[in-house]
Amino acid sequence: MADPPVVAAVGSTAIASEHRGCNARDLMAEAILDCLADAGMDDLSAVEHGLASYESDHFNLQMTLGAILQDTIGLTPKPSARIEGGGATGALALRAAWAHVVSGLCDSILVYGVEKNGRGVSSRTANQLFALSADVDWEFMIGGTYTGFYAAMIRAHMAAFGTTEEQFAHVAVRNRRNAGFNPIAQKPMDITVDDVLASLPIAEPYKLLDCSLLSDGAACVLLATKDWARAHCPRFSERPPVYFSASGCGTDTMRLGDRYPQIANFRAKREAARQAYAMAGISQPLAEIDVAELYDSYSGVEIQAVEDLGFVAAGEGGPAVASGAFDLDGDLPVNTSGGLLGRGAPVGATGILQAIEVAQQLWEGVDARRQAPGARRGLTDTHAGIASISVVNIFERRD
Amino acid sequence: MADPPVVAAVGSTAIASEHRGCNARDLMAEAILDCLADAGMDDLSAVEHGLASYESDHFNLQMTLGAILQDTIGLTPKPSARIEGGGATGALALRAAWAHVVSGLCDSILVYGVEKNGRGVSSRTANQLFALSADVDWEFMIGGTYTGFYAAMIRAHMAAFGTTEEQFAHVAVRNRRNAGFNPIAQKPMDITVDDVLASLPIAEPYKLLDCSLLSDGAACVLLATKDWARAHCPRFSERPPVYFSASGCGTDTMRLGDRYPQIANFRAKREAARQAYAMAGISQPLAEIDVAELYDSYSGVEIQAVEDLGFVAAGEGGPAVASGAFDLDGDLPVNTSGGLLGRGAPVGATGILQAIEVAQQLWEGVDARRQAPGARRGLTDTHAGIASISVVNIFERRD
Repeated sequence: MADPPVVAAVGSTAIASEHRGCNARDLMAEAILDCLADAGMDDLSAVEHGLASYESDHFNLQMTLGAILQDTIGLTPKPSARIEGGGATGALALRAAWAHVVSGLCDSILVYGVEKNGRGVSSRTANQLFALSADVDWEFMIGGTYTGFYAAMIRAHMAAFGTTEEQFAHVAVRNRRNAGFNPIAQKPMDITVDDVLASLPIAEPYKLLDCSLLSDGAACVLLATKDWARAHCPRFSERPPVYFSASGCGTDTMRLGDRYPQIANFRAKREAARQAYAMAGISQPLAEIDVAELYDSYSGVEIQAVEDLGFVAAGEGGPAVASGAFDLDGDLPVNTSGGLLGRGAPVGATGILQAIEVAQQLWEGVDARRQAPGARRGLTDTHAGIASISVVNIFERRD
Repeated sequence: MADPPVVAAVGSTAIASEHRGCNARDLMAEAILDCLADAGMDDLSAVEHGLASYESDHFNLQMTLGAILQDTIGLTPKPSARIEGGGATGALALRAAWAHVVSGLCDSILVYGVEKNGRGVSSRTANQLFALSADVDWEFMIGGTYTGFYAAMIRAHMAAFGTTEEQFAHVAVRNRRNAGFNPIAQKPMDITVDDVLASLPIAEPYKLLDCSLLSDGAACVLLATKDWARAHCPRFSERPPVYFSASGCGTDTMRLGDRYPQIANFRAKREAARQAYAMAGISQPLAEIDVAELYDSYSGVEIQAVEDLGFVAAGEGGPAVASGAFDLDGDLPVNTSGGLLGRGAPVGATGILQAIEVAQQLWEGVDARRQAPGARRGLTDTHAGIASISVVNIFERRD
């Protein structure tokens, strides 16, 4: 197999609840300009391929937005496609880009993701649109919502393992605190476990401060062969090379009911991790991974994730999280960016933002207050729905 | 570079204006059963990866349909993603699948595409939804429709080259006649050039019989390394191996107005062909390609395509088509399946159906009345919108 691609350059906008007075193309262009500065390039003329990453035609009331974005950022007439898989969209796009480079189809590919919850989403229609991301034939009419599905899953985890609300409140506190050290974060907060426990119940046991954010934002990652990056990105050699070394992907039923009775954990995530670890040659994830961005759509999901990713055994996620093992000064800092809870989640860009955080950690280029010292290998965990699609991507610094 | 994948097996439903009493999952399952029979396999348990291909969340009023389809056809917990690019969706999914196999990410991958114009599309809303596939910011409010954009393009072609309505009516007649030899075709017709010319004006110079169909249907192609296909598909060795040997992709502005004054031909298609021919080592397309499925969304588009694909020089498409050069007994039979005009166009499945027709032609497995004798190399041409994204895929028989 050919060498995996390197992360040649990255870019993003700030993440916000709403970027007013602009549309998806404007946000995308801003992220591209940030990426060009990061690469030290004047324009994208050398880049051979694009891949667009956004979740839904509904959010923008626009079909084939990928074609519009490709033109907006000046990549026509070069090849492109749109990759999608709910919340896993950005991570799936990176995975497809990996295959494009390693197969030799191109030597450089820009993965660009954006979400602008504008035209298609108002407070009136947001729940309706999110209900379309559950199974419309079977769940829509019973009023099923993802908050409810996630709540049922963590309830099962609590019942099986004694996981507590205080334990997952720790995630809600820590990730929002980490966000305070990330200049692009949407909603850094300095809160306590008691604040989380006292916040408005949404779908018990989840309360308002256990829930992640709905965000506008754009991000992009330029993947390339190392030779291409060296030849075309003037700033590439200023940083240690970071390779996108492995990718795994698992899937599961769309409906939670079809998974009964095992709903305490995510089968798709275990499968994705299994594949990625096999590809990266990892047998002891906790020891061999130095930094990780996990998909904390709800605080308890991080507890489930650290188990499904093999950082701790099943059922041990709650105590491990509450002990601080995944805090900035813990064994394996996770969600140093602030995660979906603190940095925010512009859906199609989320997986890309996770990859950016990991790459910047491996470059030792983030705010010292959130830097994982000496990190050599990082992981991103991203999923759709209740992990109907799950992706684990692994990045490695190789000096 | 590793060997390209082979077409291990193919499957599809019949294509119809409306498949009643079923949904997208039912159609997908039917195509999969057809594919299993074609492969001689009992189930998909050996298949390593899926890729979903459908155009819009709007058609089905369902987001992340790819996850539902992956489960419906029994591929969970294996990896998947959805690839999208308007009308080019199916061809883009095959292109991405090519990269998945050649990169070594997997040895087998099922590309499955479906469109069911059900819940989300009624006669009342169809135009509204199709308008969402133009540029909503700039074209929606002026009432721009694709029929109008295509009409403007062929008008420019007529003005530049003297192309006539009779010439493109020939395409409308021939492709519908070819459809008569294809058992899955939606609307075979035995009509004359005069019938086309006398049909209802839609957007002049295009008349009703110059316009392609809106279709329900599903199709899938199993791509794999030759070794995998030989090991897992009992019927694979009954046919000569057909390789998916090359793929090109080009893009262009979404808006026709941004292309002015050159609107007689498709820049993205020329770029896609250039890449694919370079990859396949083709320098004389007309002589080196034996059969082709072209994206005849409107009859005149085939005339533009034979030029953009280099089968004839710019401006010579009209006379060449009318001379019968691309008829079943011509130099290079095109749209032997009936094309979008006669076989129909279930959007996300269209590019897959084109690949199936080409593979079956190379296997010499179609109805003798539409078989291109001794065909060794075939091409598919698929695009989104007015070719904002264009894909050329090439398949070769190598005994």
